[in-house]
Amino acid sequence: MDNLHHQTFCVTRRDREKLAGHAGKVVWFTGLSGAGKSTIANALEVALHAQGKRTYILDGDNIRLGINRDLGFSHEDRAENIRRVAEVAKLMVDAGVIVITAFISPFRQDRQLAREVIGAADFIKVYVNTPLAECEARDPKGLYKKARSGQLAHMTGIDSPYEAPQAADVVIDGHECKSAQAVALILAALGI
Amino acid sequence: MDNLHHQTFCVTRRDREKLAGHAGKVVWFTGLSGAGKSTIANALEVALHAQGKRTYILDGDNIRLGINRDLGFSHEDRAENIRRVAEVAKLMVDAGVIVITAFISPFRQDRQLAREVIGAADFIKVYVNTPLAECEARDPKGLYKKARSGQLAHMTGIDSPYEAPQAADVVIDGHECKSAQAVALILAALGI
Repeated sequence: MDNLHHQTFCVTRRDREKLAGHAGKVVWFTGLSGAGKSTIANALEVALHAQGKRTYILDGDNIRLGINRDLGFSHEDRAENIRRVAEVAKLMVDAGVIVITAFISPFRQDRQLAREVIGAADFIKVYVNTPLAECEARDPKGLYKKARSGQLAHMTGIDSPYEAPQAADVVIDGHECKSAQAVALILAALGI
Repeated sequence: MDNLHHQTFCVTRRDREKLAGHAGKVVWFTGLSGAGKSTIANALEVALHAQGKRTYILDGDNIRLGINRDLGFSHEDRAENIRRVAEVAKLMVDAGVIVITAFISPFRQDRQLAREVIGAADFIKVYVNTPLAECEARDPKGLYKKARSGQLAHMTGIDSPYEAPQAADVVIDGHECKSAQAVALILAALGI
């Protein structure tokens, strides 16, 4: 874009991180609906906040009902959803925040793009690996039931694929692992 | 959207603001290109950061080259640009940050939408009122020259209108006022 020129501002990311007392990071959760991403994300934020860290959770509630209200659940819209989440997370990292994202983010290509947008050094991928049968039995939002009865299309695990990560920084056994254990694993990956 | 359900997280905006020691707010600058928005935004951030406040500037550099890289400068794209900026600012306010936005934001309707998205209580509108002739004489990015020679379309003030605010919280005379004075006026409006 020709009519954009770099503007230099005096307060930098390093300045903000110094004030925060820690680096900005993204903890990127991925896993099926019902895997436990939001539960663990919440427990992680509670632990970080208790330590005085600047935190924020991006999830369907504040993204899908806000900046991404124009997007649906087609393959293309899901890709754009994840792209925008990554861009928002990048801005928040620049602001010195530890951002926690809790989206299914089923496609490897989209997660790869998110990692590139945010930067590998600031990106911690957490795979909440809970068997589909377990997620479907939990069905906290009733989505699997809707999908099985044909009332909901593009449901990950039912009529839309989930591509499991091959190189997650942290893998959590969502069937066995308790939130507290999961949080300990993630804090270790964060070096906190 | 049927398949979105409100997820309750334990750490709230108030918790984050308590940790920050101040409220999240948006200082929304509006004015012509070259009016001095970025210069004053920078001085404001420096002043706030020196006081230990959590700050972040959203501007063309980090928005147009990031989350809004798919948007151009048509009327429709400008509206979507401002909508997304407002949504990002809202998330950052929720994270306890004082967000400073530095966009021309020429259309009253778009600024009104931004105010609604963010919430009137958290939205401080700052109009940097610098005469077009002065902005064009400064022309820090060479955009007016390009627009006058027909190399750039949709230039605010040239072939795209600027709708001056009727009810800004702070009006800065960008022709006379020094940055330090402008910052003092804005800090007063912020109650800081």
